[in-house]
Amino acid sequence: MTDALTDLLDAVARGAISPSHAADRVRALSAPPVEDLGFARIDHDRARRQGFPEVVFGEGKTADHIVAIAEGIVTRGHPLLATRVTPSVWNAISPRLRNARYWPEARVVTCAGANPVPPGSGVIAVVAAGTSDLPVAEEAAVSAEAMGNAVERIYDVGVAGLHRLLAEHERLRAARVVIVVAGMEGALPSVVGGLVAAPVVAVPTSVGYGASFGGLAALLAMLNSCASGVAVMNIDNGFGAAAHAS
Amino acid sequence: MTDALTDLLDAVARGAISPSHAADRVRALSAPPVEDLGFARIDHDRARRQGFPEVVFGEGKTADHIVAIAEGIVTRGHPLLATRVTPSVWNAISPRLRNARYWPEARVVTCAGANPVPPGSGVIAVVAAGTSDLPVAEEAAVSAEAMGNAVERIYDVGVAGLHRLLAEHERLRAARVVIVVAGMEGALPSVVGGLVAAPVVAVPTSVGYGASFGGLAALLAMLNSCASGVAVMNIDNGFGAAAHAS
Amino acid sequence: MTDALTDLLDAVARGAISPSHAADRVRALSAPPVEDLGFARIDHDRARRQGFPEVVFGEGKTADHIVAIAEGIVTRGHPLLATRVTPSVWNAISPRLRNARYWPEARVVTCAGANPVPPGSGVIAVVAAGTSDLPVAEEAAVSAEAMGNAVERIYDVGVAGLHRLLAEHERLRAARVVIVVAGMEGALPSVVGGLVAAPVVAVPTSVGYGASFGGLAALLAMLNSCASGVAVMNIDNGFGAAAHAS
Amino acid sequence: MTDALTDLLDAVARGAISPSHAADRVRALSAPPVEDLGFARIDHDRARRQGFPEVVFGEGKTADHIVAIAEGIVTRGHPLLATRVTPSVWNAISPRLRNARYWPEARVVTCAGANPVPPGSGVIAVVAAGTSDLPVAEEAAVSAEAMGNAVERIYDVGVAGLHRLLAEHERLRAARVVIVVAGMEGALPSVVGGLVAAPVVAVPTSVGYGASFGGLAALLAMLNSCASGVAVMNIDNGFGAAAHAS
Amino acid sequence: MTDALTDLLDAVARGAISPSHAADRVRALSAPPVEDLGFARIDHDRARRQGFPEVVFGEGKTADHIVAIAEGIVTRGHPLLATRVTPSVWNAISPRLRNARYWPEARVVTCAGANPVPPGSGVIAVVAAGTSDLPVAEEAAVSAEAMGNAVERIYDVGVAGLHRLLAEHERLRAARVVIVVAGMEGALPSVVGGLVAAPVVAVPTSVGYGASFGGLAALLAMLNSCASGVAVMNIDNGFGAAAHAS
Amino acid sequence: MTDALTDLLDAVARGAISPSHAADRVRALSAPPVEDLGFARIDHDRARRQGFPEVVFGEGKTADHIVAIAEGIVTRGHPLLATRVTPSVWNAISPRLRNARYWPEARVVTCAGANPVPPGSGVIAVVAAGTSDLPVAEEAAVSAEAMGNAVERIYDVGVAGLHRLLAEHERLRAARVVIVVAGMEGALPSVVGGLVAAPVVAVPTSVGYGASFGGLAALLAMLNSCASGVAVMNIDNGFGAAAHAS
Amino acid sequence: MTDALTDLLDAVARGAISPSHAADRVRALSAPPVEDLGFARIDHDRARRQGFPEVVFGEGKTADHIVAIAEGIVTRGHPLLATRVTPSVWNAISPRLRNARYWPEARVVTCAGANPVPPGSGVIAVVAAGTSDLPVAEEAAVSAEAMGNAVERIYDVGVAGLHRLLAEHERLRAARVVIVVAGMEGALPSVVGGLVAAPVVAVPTSVGYGASFGGLAALLAMLNSCASGVAVMNIDNGFGAAAHAS
Amino acid sequence: MTDALTDLLDAVARGAISPSHAADRVRALSAPPVEDLGFARIDHDRARRQGFPEVVFGEGKTADHIVAIAEGIVTRGHPLLATRVTPSVWNAISPRLRNARYWPEARVVTCAGANPVPPGSGVIAVVAAGTSDLPVAEEAAVSAEAMGNAVERIYDVGVAGLHRLLAEHERLRAARVVIVVAGMEGALPSVVGGLVAAPVVAVPTSVGYGASFGGLAALLAMLNSCASGVAVMNIDNGFGAAAHAS
Repeated sequence: MTDALTDLLDAVARGAISPSHAADRVRALSAPPVEDLGFARIDHDRARRQGFPEVVFGEGKTADHIVAIAEGIVTRGHPLLATRVTPSVWNAISPRLRNARYWPEARVVTCAGANPVPPGSGVIAVVAAGTSDLPVAEEAAVSAEAMGNAVERIYDVGVAGLHRLLAEHERLRAARVVIVVAGMEGALPSVVGGLVAAPVVAVPTSVGYGASFGGLAALLAMLNSCASGVAVMNIDNGFGAAAHAS
Repeated sequence: MTDALTDLLDAVARGAISPSHAADRVRALSAPPVEDLGFARIDHDRARRQGFPEVVFGEGKTADHIVAIAEGIVTRGHPLLATRVTPSVWNAISPRLRNARYWPEARVVTCAGANPVPPGSGVIAVVAAGTSDLPVAEEAAVSAEAMGNAVERIYDVGVAGLHRLLAEHERLRAARVVIVVAGMEGALPSVVGGLVAAPVVAVPTSVGYGASFGGLAALLAMLNSCASGVAVMNIDNGFGAAAHAS
Repeated sequence: MTDALTDLLDAVARGAISPSHAADRVRALSAPPVEDLGFARIDHDRARRQGFPEVVFGEGKTADHIVAIAEGIVTRGHPLLATRVTPSVWNAISPRLRNARYWPEARVVTCAGANPVPPGSGVIAVVAAGTSDLPVAEEAAVSAEAMGNAVERIYDVGVAGLHRLLAEHERLRAARVVIVVAGMEGALPSVVGGLVAAPVVAVPTSVGYGASFGGLAALLAMLNSCASGVAVMNIDNGFGAAAHAS
Repeated sequence: MTDALTDLLDAVARGAISPSHAADRVRALSAPPVEDLGFARIDHDRARRQGFPEVVFGEGKTADHIVAIAEGIVTRGHPLLATRVTPSVWNAISPRLRNARYWPEARVVTCAGANPVPPGSGVIAVVAAGTSDLPVAEEAAVSAEAMGNAVERIYDVGVAGLHRLLAEHERLRAARVVIVVAGMEGALPSVVGGLVAAPVVAVPTSVGYGASFGGLAALLAMLNSCASGVAVMNIDNGFGAAAHAS
Repeated sequence: MTDALTDLLDAVARGAISPSHAADRVRALSAPPVEDLGFARIDHDRARRQGFPEVVFGEGKTADHIVAIAEGIVTRGHPLLATRVTPSVWNAISPRLRNARYWPEARVVTCAGANPVPPGSGVIAVVAAGTSDLPVAEEAAVSAEAMGNAVERIYDVGVAGLHRLLAEHERLRAARVVIVVAGMEGALPSVVGGLVAAPVVAVPTSVGYGASFGGLAALLAMLNSCASGVAVMNIDNGFGAAAHAS
Repeated sequence: MTDALTDLLDAVARGAISPSHAADRVRALSAPPVEDLGFARIDHDRARRQGFPEVVFGEGKTADHIVAIAEGIVTRGHPLLATRVTPSVWNAISPRLRNARYWPEARVVTCAGANPVPPGSGVIAVVAAGTSDLPVAEEAAVSAEAMGNAVERIYDVGVAGLHRLLAEHERLRAARVVIVVAGMEGALPSVVGGLVAAPVVAVPTSVGYGASFGGLAALLAMLNSCASGVAVMNIDNGFGAAAHAS
Repeated sequence: MTDALTDLLDAVARGAISPSHAADRVRALSAPPVEDLGFARIDHDRARRQGFPEVVFGEGKTADHIVAIAEGIVTRGHPLLATRVTPSVWNAISPRLRNARYWPEARVVTCAGANPVPPGSGVIAVVAAGTSDLPVAEEAAVSAEAMGNAVERIYDVGVAGLHRLLAEHERLRAARVVIVVAGMEGALPSVVGGLVAAPVVAVPTSVGYGASFGGLAALLAMLNSCASGVAVMNIDNGFGAAAHAS
Repeated sequence: MTDALTDLLDAVARGAISPSHAADRVRALSAPPVEDLGFARIDHDRARRQGFPEVVFGEGKTADHIVAIAEGIVTRGHPLLATRVTPSVWNAISPRLRNARYWPEARVVTCAGANPVPPGSGVIAVVAAGTSDLPVAEEAAVSAEAMGNAVERIYDVGVAGLHRLLAEHERLRAARVVIVVAGMEGALPSVVGGLVAAPVVAVPTSVGYGASFGGLAALLAMLNSCASGVAVMNIDNGFGAAAHAS
């Protein structure tokens, strides 16, 4: 903003623009490029500020709202990433988002933008403890790919059958970041964290029974990991892990 | 009781004892041999009923009370096992319990009884995740030994350095029961449970920081273990694990 | 592994096999016999490692997935044990698993394998507090039987009518292990634990109202049992109790 | 109030007192006899309204405050009952409350009033699970006696040694109300509730370890009692149980 | 039991019956009159032991089970009380329980027995804070009436409009016991407890929103009541309050 | 009440009315104008006591009950405000409440009364973090308007895009009270509280995922706000915020 | 800021100041007057922004830090308000803050500033349930006075003795805002909220025993108040209530 | 390991080493270099596996233990990092660790190793909300520096005074990773997360009062952050954030 401001004030000094006009411009320089849809404000500035445009969180939104926001993003050339989109909502929106693609296990919709996403460096490994954790793991994997990253999927390697995990040791070691998705007792991130030097992002899932309390047991276990360097996302938040890792 | 009762009634039929006397005896047969110390009732029948005499839980008891109960047990020839005995309480009671021995790390007092304890079958392995878990692990190990078991100690084998645990694989496999003591994220029982066929008894410890909530995180993780056959004791309850395993 | 390794190296020394071939074999010796179905990895090694093959946890799995895993297990001669199978899923899979049997109250599917299960020693008693606890108790009982154990069922003996429990005293005493299933206040394991010398495995159930919080009240009560030697499973985890007891 | 009011208005009608004076009296009739000590307001009306005068809850109060309130009560002829009085506070106040008596285990101070307390009907049984529960049980027993009741103490009859409780069956049956005090898993009220027809008042204590969470486990167990008619007091609230039973 | 036993032994002494026969009789004398329906054991002894026969808790039971248990109770002349009976279950059972009556708001079924219930002494007041609390209050009121008590209903007198409660002061004062049913902040028992000398039984309801957590807020408030003598039932447990008060 | 009382007593003194009649009148003066509908008691005095008549909380009430209460309020000239009214309930009641209006997003029904509501002073700003928080925000806004206030809506200004909030700085500063509605991490009230001098009323919403626990995370965050002067309402309680602000 | 900005740009247009100088001034206009002490940044702008200068939260701060911050505030003519100041800290700082005054019960330090605080309108009533709640109530009362308000203290009027509260009805009615401080079951705000039209600010205190959980019971009760318009502060946060009310 | 293994087997094939000797070597290749101190096992392999040697967690360890472990690390040329070291422990160990340095605010001990740590890329910003959060922030900052990173400290920029944070906008934007440390409501990571493109690692602190529950409020808020890409560490775990960021 500094340069634009100095240029503007030079113009005022030269008499090229009037002071009152310049005052408007000063205010405009700091006004964010927010598009107001009535029911929501799209933050088009986010791509510049944060490296990726606003992501549509589909849960609780109507198909009309998702389409309107998605069109607002796509028409500016940004790539589209929408999470928590149910099949029925996808059926409603797919005719109106021609180039979009649906990933049913991940419940994610993606659409490449006119402006290419800069490629990420290195590989992100997405590790899942059991088959019930796959929807969250896939949300992480597809989101990470949409943000331009190469992804390695390593699934069904829970700690009660350790040889399955050890057999994948080399793929784990090769990753720049490791996302570990697990429910029940949430022990996998600690074990993975002890095997690799890369940062580990742990995602507890709501998979579990009895005293798992909707993922709370796994969440607490991950927060208390005895492996240093394990950071934790909210329960079932696969997308957030991808955003952090990306 | 059946035989004693039939004998008694035969004697009544023979006129050997009077009916009113017999009625007293019938009642006596079912009266438990409980010794009333005023402040407590010692259950001397427990050795017969449960295989080991009453155990003194030292926490919150005065030295005088512990000595009185301990003497009540020892004078009947039972072995003594007292847990949660602090060093200062031990100093107060050691002159009065001549043959007793104190295990400071376990905070346990033991004393062999006149009646030998029948030896257990097989080995009990006591596994601890970290050095901070040792007091609880030692309470389990010393208690199991006092109950007549052979014990293998396998300590400091937390999941963040998996090779330490795998190096002890054979000792683990050889055990009849495995007691696993861990705090923080409580992941060790799941990993051990996947390696052995023996039943696993998990003991969460109150070791941890921040969101461990005094062992709650480890407790929940152990209850939700993805390894089948892991049973859980109360937080820090090393003695209970020994009693269950024994 | 040691003997196989030495034999292999002898063969290399003799020139019987080439070094590069031997290197492959060394690696193969430690590779686990895991069968990858795409959506899951069956751990066929578990029967050797843990005494019983992998058990199918049916909750959240489709009928197709359960059939595929079940066939993978049965075709190797292993016995089948699948838990949390609803009647509608059973209807879908029964035509494809010819020799399997469904236990509706336990929601369990079993199928004897070509390889007989070695018989367990002694009797496992399964005790239930009330009629609402029966599904969990039956899951424990049927699972224990599938693992080769003799089982005694002692049901509807809650602590508010103590004479019902005391009347079963002799059957309780005769058991090698006692599994106690209870909801609401979870008091039954403490009472049973005071009556028998055998280890007690307590299973809290989600049966209860108001402040039972889905079985939490019973879970906490069991963890705090004043009877020593009571170990606790996750809420409603009847199968886990059977695996531990077995 | 109705009669007093009618009398007053008759007097107004007769001209015996002026309307403005009568208005004052009407207001005075509904003014409560509250004595304001500056730091507290003693409610002298409570004896009439509730059958027993205000009770001094000693926790957190200074010796001076307790003495002042106690004197305010005693000087009106009411009996004194003060709970949660530590020995050091008792030492400070005993010279100033000549006829008072201290019950150290119950931490209670009592003093008979000039006006005798009407005797209660029937016996209140106070049952305690273990020796650690005695302070709370004694608070209940001494308070109940101060309120004019006959009390039977039945202590150290926890459920893990059932024969101790069954041996006291007749004393339990004879009581009009049974107060049951227990910590840890809080199972005793359910067992007692199944043995007697009298109402049961359960008092959880903060006695316990690990996952007892300061009495929460016992509290939840008691609230979920499968014996009908068990009502529950706050943790460690022995006095409250006595007040309810009285 | 004492007299019956002495008579029996006299008969043995006289040779009137053989010792082995007498041994059977001794055992029979202590056998409880429990009727085993296969899926449940009806405790017919409870009426003698506890003053009212077993009550059918209808939640989670099938219509067939309820009918079978109800018939077992009615055919012995006991009065029937079944709680938590939904209208659809009632429709299924009403043709088979001819003299029974359904209380829809209370969700209770009653049926007078051949043996009359002894009348209770005094009046039980049932007080409810709001209209949403009525189902629980009615469960308490109808249950208390079925147990032979006179009941006064005082409804919709929540603390935010205190004059409604104060207007009912005299009916409150006249009661022998007061049951107070309230959800949300659960303040009503404290206010009632300050107005009456009778014991107060508080029933928290699951009525509430946001941070009421299914009645937990009301439950905690009632346990912490500053009015002495307030005892608390489980959330929504109107029947339990009636049983305690009765 | 004082003046009316004095007048009355003057009349008694003058013999204008009899003492017994006057006694009735004294009682009537303090009797609240409560209308008893059988299932509820309408508190018509609330408008005088609290500035606005009783508000109908529609959740859990039948259409018939809402109509009956609403008619009771409207026929006395009071304004109607009913919250938590679902569209289906509105369809049932709209033909019977002719002048009422339904606000679907807020789920509120309003109806002007014959007696005008006195206008509030100043503007109430209602700020919402995201589009999912709008139902609660609208409940607050519509309720505040019904109580006679001018309202400024400032929506979709969550803290992750701070420029959207800063752009509304002047409207925020101009408000007399600011109601801030937010779910998820509940950070918005702290940020707003740091920008304005007016009191802030924070309303946590149940919007959130994973470890938001139905609004608990937002509730705790708001209670712990580092901005002084932030007071908190129950989760989703938009109406309560309006009542407090009004 | 608008006028200052326009003036500045006029000056640039006139050539009165150079563009680069003007750019500095534009930046300065938005720079906050924050004083950096090294260990803290004093926000001197807060008085302008929020009506009262920064308040010193004394808990956890050293005497040196408190004095340094206090001097920074006082030397600019602002009034001083420091909360949670223990007597020992006060002893350390009193010689260095000459005109300051200490309120021991409230644990508050105040010092009038050179710039007078504008007087608040109307009276703030501070109501406390019991004597144990006085420290929090006094923190609220003294803070409110320091902010220029008239305060009425109404103490020891808990709901178990309702007449004490009703006797203060008129003082309550006269207040512009009512702050209600209560521990234990937290019922007082609901009762007060039903008596007055003014907004009620409820402050739960950590006073309580057993299941009060450090004020959680009172906090939940207040959040669930059935009286509309009750807003809640954090536990023990008397100052916050004063800031909100002020 | 592959190359070393092939070389070894070539040597066996050549007869250069015997098969039995080679078998020892194969085993040695996979044996971890763990040093057993009796009370602990130092994992010297971690530097190779994870990029930084084992870190000493000082809490709960004696000075002797810390010195022994520290010497074990330093004598192999590794850098030393010990956290949670109190001043009194430092006084005991400083004479024996000659080149070590103590950071009192961070409670960290560091000592450069003979082997230099490879420098990290880019800058890690450590942001703290308030002065009470500094110990945790300093633990993060000093740890990150010990691991070879450049660190920018940005302290006392809590959200209630937003201008303080906005003034540091450019330093924030320049960081490769941002660690945000905050207690109380934990709102700062969401605001920072909306300003920067770099990944944000949030550390809740146990700073807070009343309903902060030892940092739980901040923890939940951070897990529910509306800014995508915020990962969370355990409460007060500054070191873990540094390890993750590094």
